[in-house]
Amino acid sequence: MADSRDSSPEGLVSTSGGSKYPNFEVDYVINYHLPPPTTPSPSGPLAEAEASFTQLITLLSKTGFALEVRPGRAPLTPTSPSSLLIFLRIASPSLLEKQIYRYRVQDWLYGVRTAAPGPPNSLSAPQEPITDAERLRLAYLLITKPVNEGGAGITPGIGQWRFVKAVFPLHDRKFNKEWITSWSTKYILDDSDLLKIRNQFGEKVAFYFAFLQSYFQFLLFPALFGSAAWLILGGFSWVYAVVNCLWGVVFFEHWKMKEVDLAVQWGVRGVGKIQLPRPQFKFEREGVDEVTGEIVKVYSPYKRLARQLLQVPFAGACVCVLGGLILGCFSIEIFITEVYMGPFKQYLTFLPTVLLTIFMPTFTTLLTKLAERLTELENYETVDAHQASFVQKIFVLNFITSYLGIFLTAFVYVPFGKILVPYLDVFQLTAQKFTAEGKPLPTKEWVINPDRLRKQVIYFTVTAQIVNFATEVVVPYAKRRIFRTVEKVQTEIKKGDQARVEWPKDAEEEERFLKRVREEAELGEYDVTIDYREMVIQFGYLSLFSVVWPLTGCSFLVNNWVEARSDAVKIAANSQRPIPWRADSIGPWLDALGFLSWLGSVVSAALVYLFNKSGGGQLGVGSVWDIPGWALLLAVMGSEHVYLVVQMVVRGVIRRLDSPGLRKERAERFAMRRELLERMVEEEVVSEEAGEKVGWEGQREGISREVLEEEARGLSGLGPEKRFWLRQRGAGESVEVGRGLIQLVSLAGGNNSTVKRQ
Amino acid sequence: MADSRDSSPEGLVSTSGGSKYPNFEVDYVINYHLPPPTTPSPSGPLAEAEASFTQLITLLSKTGFALEVRPGRAPLTPTSPSSLLIFLRIASPSLLEKQIYRYRVQDWLYGVRTAAPGPPNSLSAPQEPITDAERLRLAYLLITKPVNEGGAGITPGIGQWRFVKAVFPLHDRKFNKEWITSWSTKYILDDSDLLKIRNQFGEKVAFYFAFLQSYFQFLLFPALFGSAAWLILGGFSWVYAVVNCLWGVVFFEHWKMKEVDLAVQWGVRGVGKIQLPRPQFKFEREGVDEVTGEIVKVYSPYKRLARQLLQVPFAGACVCVLGGLILGCFSIEIFITEVYMGPFKQYLTFLPTVLLTIFMPTFTTLLTKLAERLTELENYETVDAHQASFVQKIFVLNFITSYLGIFLTAFVYVPFGKILVPYLDVFQLTAQKFTAEGKPLPTKEWVINPDRLRKQVIYFTVTAQIVNFATEVVVPYAKRRIFRTVEKVQTEIKKGDQARVEWPKDAEEEERFLKRVREEAELGEYDVTIDYREMVIQFGYLSLFSVVWPLTGCSFLVNNWVEARSDAVKIAANSQRPIPWRADSIGPWLDALGFLSWLGSVVSAALVYLFNKSGGGQLGVGSVWDIPGWALLLAVMGSEHVYLVVQMVVRGVIRRLDSPGLRKERAERFAMRRELLERMVEEEVVSEEAGEKVGWEGQREGISREVLEEEARGLSGLGPEKRFWLRQRGAGESVEVGRGLIQLVSLAGGNNSTVKRQ
Repeated sequence: MADSRDSSPEGLVSTSGGSKYPNFEVDYVINYHLPPPTTPSPSGPLAEAEASFTQLITLLSKTGFALEVRPGRAPLTPTSPSSLLIFLRIASPSLLEKQIYRYRVQDWLYGVRTAAPGPPNSLSAPQEPITDAERLRLAYLLITKPVNEGGAGITPGIGQWRFVKAVFPLHDRKFNKEWITSWSTKYILDDSDLLKIRNQFGEKVAFYFAFLQSYFQFLLFPALFGSAAWLILGGFSWVYAVVNCLWGVVFFEHWKMKEVDLAVQWGVRGVGKIQLPRPQFKFEREGVDEVTGEIVKVYSPYKRLARQLLQVPFAGACVCVLGGLILGCFSIEIFITEVYMGPFKQYLTFLPTVLLTIFMPTFTTLLTKLAERLTELENYETVDAHQASFVQKIFVLNFITSYLGIFLTAFVYVPFGKILVPYLDVFQLTAQKFTAEGKPLPTKEWVINPDRLRKQVIYFTVTAQIVNFATEVVVPYAKRRIFRTVEKVQTEIKKGDQARVEWPKDAEEEERFLKRVREEAELGEYDVTIDYREMVIQFGYLSLFSVVWPLTGCSFLVNNWVEARSDAVKIAANSQRPIPWRADSIGPWLDALGFLSWLGSVVSAALVYLFNKSGGGQLGVGSVWDIPGWALLLAVMGSEHVYLVVQMVVRGVIRRLDSPGLRKERAERFAMRRELLERMVEEEVVSEEAGEKVGWEGQREGISREVLEEEARGLSGLGPEKRFWLRQRGAGESVEVGRGLIQLVSLAGGNNSTVKRQ
Repeated sequence: MADSRDSSPEGLVSTSGGSKYPNFEVDYVINYHLPPPTTPSPSGPLAEAEASFTQLITLLSKTGFALEVRPGRAPLTPTSPSSLLIFLRIASPSLLEKQIYRYRVQDWLYGVRTAAPGPPNSLSAPQEPITDAERLRLAYLLITKPVNEGGAGITPGIGQWRFVKAVFPLHDRKFNKEWITSWSTKYILDDSDLLKIRNQFGEKVAFYFAFLQSYFQFLLFPALFGSAAWLILGGFSWVYAVVNCLWGVVFFEHWKMKEVDLAVQWGVRGVGKIQLPRPQFKFEREGVDEVTGEIVKVYSPYKRLARQLLQVPFAGACVCVLGGLILGCFSIEIFITEVYMGPFKQYLTFLPTVLLTIFMPTFTTLLTKLAERLTELENYETVDAHQASFVQKIFVLNFITSYLGIFLTAFVYVPFGKILVPYLDVFQLTAQKFTAEGKPLPTKEWVINPDRLRKQVIYFTVTAQIVNFATEVVVPYAKRRIFRTVEKVQTEIKKGDQARVEWPKDAEEEERFLKRVREEAELGEYDVTIDYREMVIQFGYLSLFSVVWPLTGCSFLVNNWVEARSDAVKIAANSQRPIPWRADSIGPWLDALGFLSWLGSVVSAALVYLFNKSGGGQLGVGSVWDIPGWALLLAVMGSEHVYLVVQMVVRGVIRRLDSPGLRKERAERFAMRRELLERMVEEEVVSEEAGEKVGWEGQREGISREVLEEEARGLSGLGPEKRFWLRQRGAGESVEVGRGLIQLVSLAGGNNSTVKRQ
């Protein structure tokens, strides 16, 4: 959408001939970076790149790809890198079909599918169409799988393949245009919208949008109720806190159900069991799996555990670095805005903001890098485990950067401000050094600013969201624009330069297409983790602090409508098309959501207890020491336990609810069972007809006949346990014997009654 | 074992001929009660019983059972009931095999088995032997399944079949003797012991013994540590409380893993999914299942929910009735032992005990009956749901009867005694009425008896356990002895009576066998629920109150060694052989265990905080009002949260552990997958050999040839997307093009370096 030249698919049709293949049937493009030719030595990196390139082509070709090579980015200066573009297409339909069949069988064996897939030649059957996502996923697996498993063994960016900068599919511009157009004109996304996303970008991305949509719909309630509460109850209302907590529980549990439902509908339930090996995994030794007898790569779990323990100092470091920064800026801010009355106050007010703006992103980036390194050090075998561990770390990081400021205001500044503010004298002394004469700086008497908390929450829930939107959508677009302009200017300047390499001119019919591909090659990868993080942190504000300012829900409702669309634009225009991975849930973020929801019950209770104006022992009015500790603890503890009980109840109720996905699964399982059982019955019938008829009647009769013969010999040859079973021949005799005994009893009764009558 | 006449299997061999069939090959015995023949009218209950009997025999015979009828209990007086014994045996081996095959296939379809079972004729293969338990379970299902599903539709005790008093298998005396002998001489039961139980009595009973064994082994730790703590730390020690809580977590989580492991080893994992319909279930209407299209019986879930809500007043009633009784007796006891100094004190001391002994069992029995009725009213569709709901209710009941007394002492009597005891004046006034003259009764000044709590805990954890053992094993045995003697005397007395029915004399060779069967018919059913309840309640004492008296663990260790053996005797000698049901866990008791373990963390913390002598703010020394409420709450809350965190960690660790069962399952799944994938590959090879060879090379070559022809025509007929893929013919050309481009870059570098050198 950002690119007006390509926004018209008709235009694309006219120049690249035929709207049927706007992507020239390309499955994947490899962006092959060439290092700058600093020295022309035969063993330099460029020579390595060349050798590796030859191998790459050979391997891919052997695996079954059709290939075309085109020039990529031209080296602008002799020291700037250039690139080649390698276009891949699965050469034969039968290879694709075989792959699909193989993976569908694997799914079936792992219990992801209920029914076994049809034979390979029935794959294009209408009930199980091959989606774009499936084809692209399998093609990517073909590229990256080890050679001994039938793949080409290309591991982008790693080791021998470090020149492979990216392997990406091409955007379907027509789809993207329709997608953005349709979403920007509707309020609610339905399951068919999500299904389209799933078919185009895979389940991993689709789950993000499903979560976003579900969250958006659920936000309607806190938006409405919050507005009402804001008007009627004001901030810090018990009622709002309780309702908000309950809402959190219901939303969380509902999503867990929805997630399963979608996974079943999309045929990916339990897909987490099929793990992708992580190519970066370094093994210590090869061992033989006790169970399967296969050779497996082993990394000592104790070593990993030891490295996982590094997470503790990491968390400590995060708290120290980010906490110190926030605390520092916080103190300076309080000092300047609420105590300081000296010169330059109007400028100094911005000092903490400036400090935060400069240092916060720097520190966060550094710590994120550290988290990445740590996760790599933990050396996980599978992509999922690696991702989960990384998510854990960045959740800690973001928890601190997002919530610590508010926590400080609510639980340190307001209750203990009176005690702590005098210590801010240190700033005064520092400031005094820079000003002349020993006379004390003018300060004002400090009073707690009870509105500070509310302002801070509003900042984080409104302003920060808008800033976020800007950095997410506007900045990358602007950056790319500027970058292109710079490039153009550079090209102009270098035009006369001898060293400049002129790529051979593109064929006319391919020109537009190649231009587009080169642009896409320059785009970044789409990382769904960042978007999840944003939403989860947002949910945290709602759950933890919305009791301070009940309009939070409203703000988020509006924000998230825009968010879904801006994320769509981000994928469609600002990123390479993502590789359509599968997923059966939102993964590790689910735990984060649950944690925030639980923490919300505790924090809300504490906030209400401390700040509610109509209750007893409030802050901002009295001192913190007037508050009975047991009452605060009881409030917090009570709230937490109510939360846990409600959660149990809601879970119980939701477990009993039905959903379309579960119904579908049940129907499939039932159909499979019935089919198999029916087949079994048929077999039984056949075997019986084949003359094996030894039913109970036959048996019984057989015995009876045998008995008749035996009786002549007085049954003497049989053991007592045989004779036991031959006393009554057939059911009729048993009935007779029984009735005889009953008659006896009945006669006794008759006698009795006659006795009575006598 | 209680029956000395049958304790020697050899004796049995000599009289019933052949140790191979001591049970005469009988699968099941039906104890068919005949009502007393009060009136000889043809429509009386006896006539009904006769009609029903005929139908019973016909149905069973049609289903495939061989039948023999023998007289059961003779009517001693004309008004006493009598009975018939109906012996059942699955008539043909092929019927049994078919049933086994059908149910194994069902298991496979429900995911209980990993591998599909072999065809019916391979069933007796050594790797999957037919156990006694399996045969008996299927025979019972044949008897009870509805007629349209191929069974006889006998529902013991219900409706038309109300005369069917019991359907039970016969004890294997030889097995029982060996079982009791071997267990009474060993300390630790291993998996093979449990496997034997499983093969004989089914998984449901086996799980009880597995649980008992696991609990017994785990008790070693609290027994040792508790003894040490008792010697060194004394009661109410923080250290003991913490260690005990951690032990509880580890035990609970370990059992959850062990449970899964055993279920896998026994091939019953997920058996809970295959639900047995409850014959007593009353449906409102028949509906069509949306998914399966089958006709299902529907009972409104809202109606059920409404009835489930009755559990709340039920719990209230339990608390009021039992709580009132306990509270009353408690007050009387305190008054008499600690305040009262009047006449008859030595006798009055026993008053509360007498009251409790009389009323407690009465009330408990009544409330248990009520719980049963309530559960029936809730009208569950499946046996498991019914059982779970019933267990929930009796857990509440037992929770109150077992723990309320101690709770009262710990959290009411000791802290608030000073305030409450004056209210006991009401007893004084009552007592005064019965004594003469208005002069006040002699009382002593009341002081809190701090040792009371300890004494109470010792009573519940030692004395009550011994009493329990007596009521469980000795009482039923004595009862039966007395009952038999009475019967004999009665028989002697009535010998001359005209109305007495003489059953026909038993055949000599069957005499002993029938005598034994008649005895077994008189025994009660074994209910594993009662034994679970006992163990879970015991675990509760350990978890909640052992901090009061750390020797609790020792007492339980000894008790449980005896318990396992006495339970074995109970099954072998005091009950009918249980129907070998399957189970994949200890069912609803697991939740009860978890709850008690959690509650233990809270209660222990509170006890330690209140009673610890070396800490601050203790009871028994100062007053309750000296204790800071926030500190108590903080202790309790802290303990609870530590518990929850530890639980999470232990869960995480245990989830990563391997177990033999899981390994077995993994191996089976792997084998199955490999087999199927290999078969698939073979098919692929075959299909390829059949001439379908259209690999990528063929494709590529085909295209190349085509291209050569096309080239002559200037490729004009093809679209740009076709021409795009034909520019480089084969991987070799792609490599050439790429290398050409790299050369260009390399040259630029060369130029550059020359430029530099210039």
